[in-house]
Amino acid sequence: MRSEEFRRSAAAVIDWIAEYLDHAENYPVAPRVSPGEIRAQLPPSPPEAGEKFAEIFADFEQVLFPGVMHWQSPNFFGYFPSNNSFPSILGELLSAGLGVQGMLWATSPACTELETHVLDWLVDLLGLPRRFHSSSAGGGVIQDSASSSAVCALIAACHRATGGRAAREGMDRRLTAYASSQAHSSIIKAARLTGLGEENLRLIDVDADFAMRPDALDAAISADRAAGKTPAFVAATIGTTSSMAIDPLAEIGAVSRRQGVWLHVDAAMAGTATLCPEYRHLNQHLDAADSYCFNPHKWMFTNFDCDCFFVADRSSLIDAMSVTPEYLRNRASAGGEVFDYRDWQIPLGRRFRALKLWFVLRSFGIEELRRRIRSHIDCARQFAEWVQADSRFELAAPPRLSLVCFRHRSDDATNQRLLEMLQRDGRIFLSHTRLGDRFVLRMSIGQTRTTIEHVRAAWKLIQEFAPPVP
Amino acid sequence: MRSEEFRRSAAAVIDWIAEYLDHAENYPVAPRVSPGEIRAQLPPSPPEAGEKFAEIFADFEQVLFPGVMHWQSPNFFGYFPSNNSFPSILGELLSAGLGVQGMLWATSPACTELETHVLDWLVDLLGLPRRFHSSSAGGGVIQDSASSSAVCALIAACHRATGGRAAREGMDRRLTAYASSQAHSSIIKAARLTGLGEENLRLIDVDADFAMRPDALDAAISADRAAGKTPAFVAATIGTTSSMAIDPLAEIGAVSRRQGVWLHVDAAMAGTATLCPEYRHLNQHLDAADSYCFNPHKWMFTNFDCDCFFVADRSSLIDAMSVTPEYLRNRASAGGEVFDYRDWQIPLGRRFRALKLWFVLRSFGIEELRRRIRSHIDCARQFAEWVQADSRFELAAPPRLSLVCFRHRSDDATNQRLLEMLQRDGRIFLSHTRLGDRFVLRMSIGQTRTTIEHVRAAWKLIQEFAPPVP
Repeated sequence: MRSEEFRRSAAAVIDWIAEYLDHAENYPVAPRVSPGEIRAQLPPSPPEAGEKFAEIFADFEQVLFPGVMHWQSPNFFGYFPSNNSFPSILGELLSAGLGVQGMLWATSPACTELETHVLDWLVDLLGLPRRFHSSSAGGGVIQDSASSSAVCALIAACHRATGGRAAREGMDRRLTAYASSQAHSSIIKAARLTGLGEENLRLIDVDADFAMRPDALDAAISADRAAGKTPAFVAATIGTTSSMAIDPLAEIGAVSRRQGVWLHVDAAMAGTATLCPEYRHLNQHLDAADSYCFNPHKWMFTNFDCDCFFVADRSSLIDAMSVTPEYLRNRASAGGEVFDYRDWQIPLGRRFRALKLWFVLRSFGIEELRRRIRSHIDCARQFAEWVQADSRFELAAPPRLSLVCFRHRSDDATNQRLLEMLQRDGRIFLSHTRLGDRFVLRMSIGQTRTTIEHVRAAWKLIQEFAPPVP
Repeated sequence: MRSEEFRRSAAAVIDWIAEYLDHAENYPVAPRVSPGEIRAQLPPSPPEAGEKFAEIFADFEQVLFPGVMHWQSPNFFGYFPSNNSFPSILGELLSAGLGVQGMLWATSPACTELETHVLDWLVDLLGLPRRFHSSSAGGGVIQDSASSSAVCALIAACHRATGGRAAREGMDRRLTAYASSQAHSSIIKAARLTGLGEENLRLIDVDADFAMRPDALDAAISADRAAGKTPAFVAATIGTTSSMAIDPLAEIGAVSRRQGVWLHVDAAMAGTATLCPEYRHLNQHLDAADSYCFNPHKWMFTNFDCDCFFVADRSSLIDAMSVTPEYLRNRASAGGEVFDYRDWQIPLGRRFRALKLWFVLRSFGIEELRRRIRSHIDCARQFAEWVQADSRFELAAPPRLSLVCFRHRSDDATNQRLLEMLQRDGRIFLSHTRLGDRFVLRMSIGQTRTTIEHVRAAWKLIQEFAPPVP
């Protein structure tokens, strides 16, 4: 493909994306396809001779497009959002076009420096402790996801707890870690894949609001220590996936500090809310936190992947991760004045992801980001009121930020049926969880173009499909 | 930003990218900036009110662009290529616009099915064993990098070797792993971060061509077994980073099979060459391989990130990685008919990366991909001849595929000075390694637009800067 065809083809793709995002609400949110249905339409081998882009794109539209879930639809209320925006798309496009590698400062200085700079901005914008700023002993880096941040945090914690022996000699099986029973599955996955072992991760009880009980955490750590274990890592959550529960950071921080364990705080979803001064209190008690992450690719209009990960002491992380072969040595790294982000993450290579974050922050401006976040939270508040006003329904957890957990006042089977009817109907998409061992519907409001009108229509549909209470 | 501004802005970005890639050779390849120089030009905080895209883009051009390395320049001969193409950029653009999540089949069936399909194509195109095809017990998945593939392979190996105990109880410190002393640093990093421990990874001696010695491998495994260890994992390389050395797969496969260890094959760079029938022999002896990866984001015109990872027995990988919270349960997953790629990788979320690979394969066509790869290899062959014809220089390793390792016939300091002069001059960019404890220059030829004319000009410059032999 030459540049003339690229310009022409790109113009068509750009038009398509603009049309799509302007009208995504017109599609049934979930696709109606069976396993294997898409593949069955694809040829058994690629062509020997190149094809025109227009043909390829036509296949995308006819074969693949009917098989995508419309995550960008304003009627998408499932899981957590993975929202998007035009400036973010432009950032990803420019990053793809430049095609630079940011593994070392030296392999593209602007890639590293913009990333450090924008993450420092976010330290200020989110009211995070100064220890996470690059001018301190810490700093921020973009990861692909909160899962990878959890892995990095756990590795750094084990490195610190063993004086570096874990990386050299292998994981010390006396090490233990802690998270609430409501923590994200990625914390368990991290325990598995760092070699800590799932059984050495204690899932701490939660209170009635699904937040970690600090007394139970303290007791578990003390019991482990008494049994000869080495408690090393606590993962607390600001905004759990199931119910947006907020672990009590002040108390957990005090326990972590007293017990001398690494405290990682996962604010993947809720972190974005702290752009607003009225929610900044969520980040108030992070004095004892050793690491923190949040995902602009969830709720901050930045397309996946973009997780911002901050550490208070970057040396634990770098010492644990850094392996320097001759072919990566260079004068700038040897001088010690630069960040080489390959040592802050699992992969070696890295693309220029800071561009999209920079585009989003500047193109929206902070006030507009706040306005949209507030609007989602207002929508959720309104939705929770509607739920409470309908005697067939009840809230299943305190509504928090942009998430409302609710259920029909009957058995699990009825709720499950209601969810499936809604998913099959397709006009909206909700997902579910279990809370207190009951099947619960989750209304998660965070797509870029979702307004109160979409939420109102969704509630009407839910009401329409809901049976009377038996 | 509304869609009209997006269309306008995107057209400008597209034009800029087309111009850039058409003329990237005009820039000095390496930027001339000092640590902190870019950041010093950025404002201390983002704006409260949104800014026009044109202003933001102007800052990109004035502040950031002078600080990028031109990886896409045809005069970039450093490290390994990270090449790119117009169809690939369109794929990344469309993926960003769609903004779908492919963590589960159900969260966007087309995202999963296209990926499985294209990776099956590659099994055929590269002549890989049928066991890596999704219709067998194995299958392929896109990872961000060969580093992450190494982590996944090592985790699956440890899982298999311990009957699942490693994930549950924590890493068994009797487990040992093996790779040649020339293996990529990511294998050592994987040993660290999976908790295996760097000391439990044996770095096996290489022969005069820098390929792993299978006898030494066999001896090391046997010695470990005799000492009560549990050998679990061998990483072999097709095309090492330093010198493109090719480990003897037939012999290593036989050892691995006899010793009952997981064999992972890292063909990150060289794998692409096996698109050509005349290089397919590189993949000939993979019968004993349990996993294999190669990076279209290196040499197959697909922008980073895109590593293709294949396993022969997907159940070891999935069993090791899968943690299923209630909020991800769904009918399709429960039915067992679908792949949920979140269980094949470290992160949970994943974007629609198969699109760019599909665009590249179809837009180029296989013949054109082969033509370009052959052209790079021809360039390297020619370059090696020039090196041999100049009495000041010598080859430092057998030239293989697109890489030529060479040195000035004098001391390390002279070679290092020569490299620095070239990097400072900026017209071309080479990097270095050490082989046999000597400082060696690496000429890696794989950028999308590199032709023999660029290589000729590079060689002329090297000759010009090279002192006589003392």
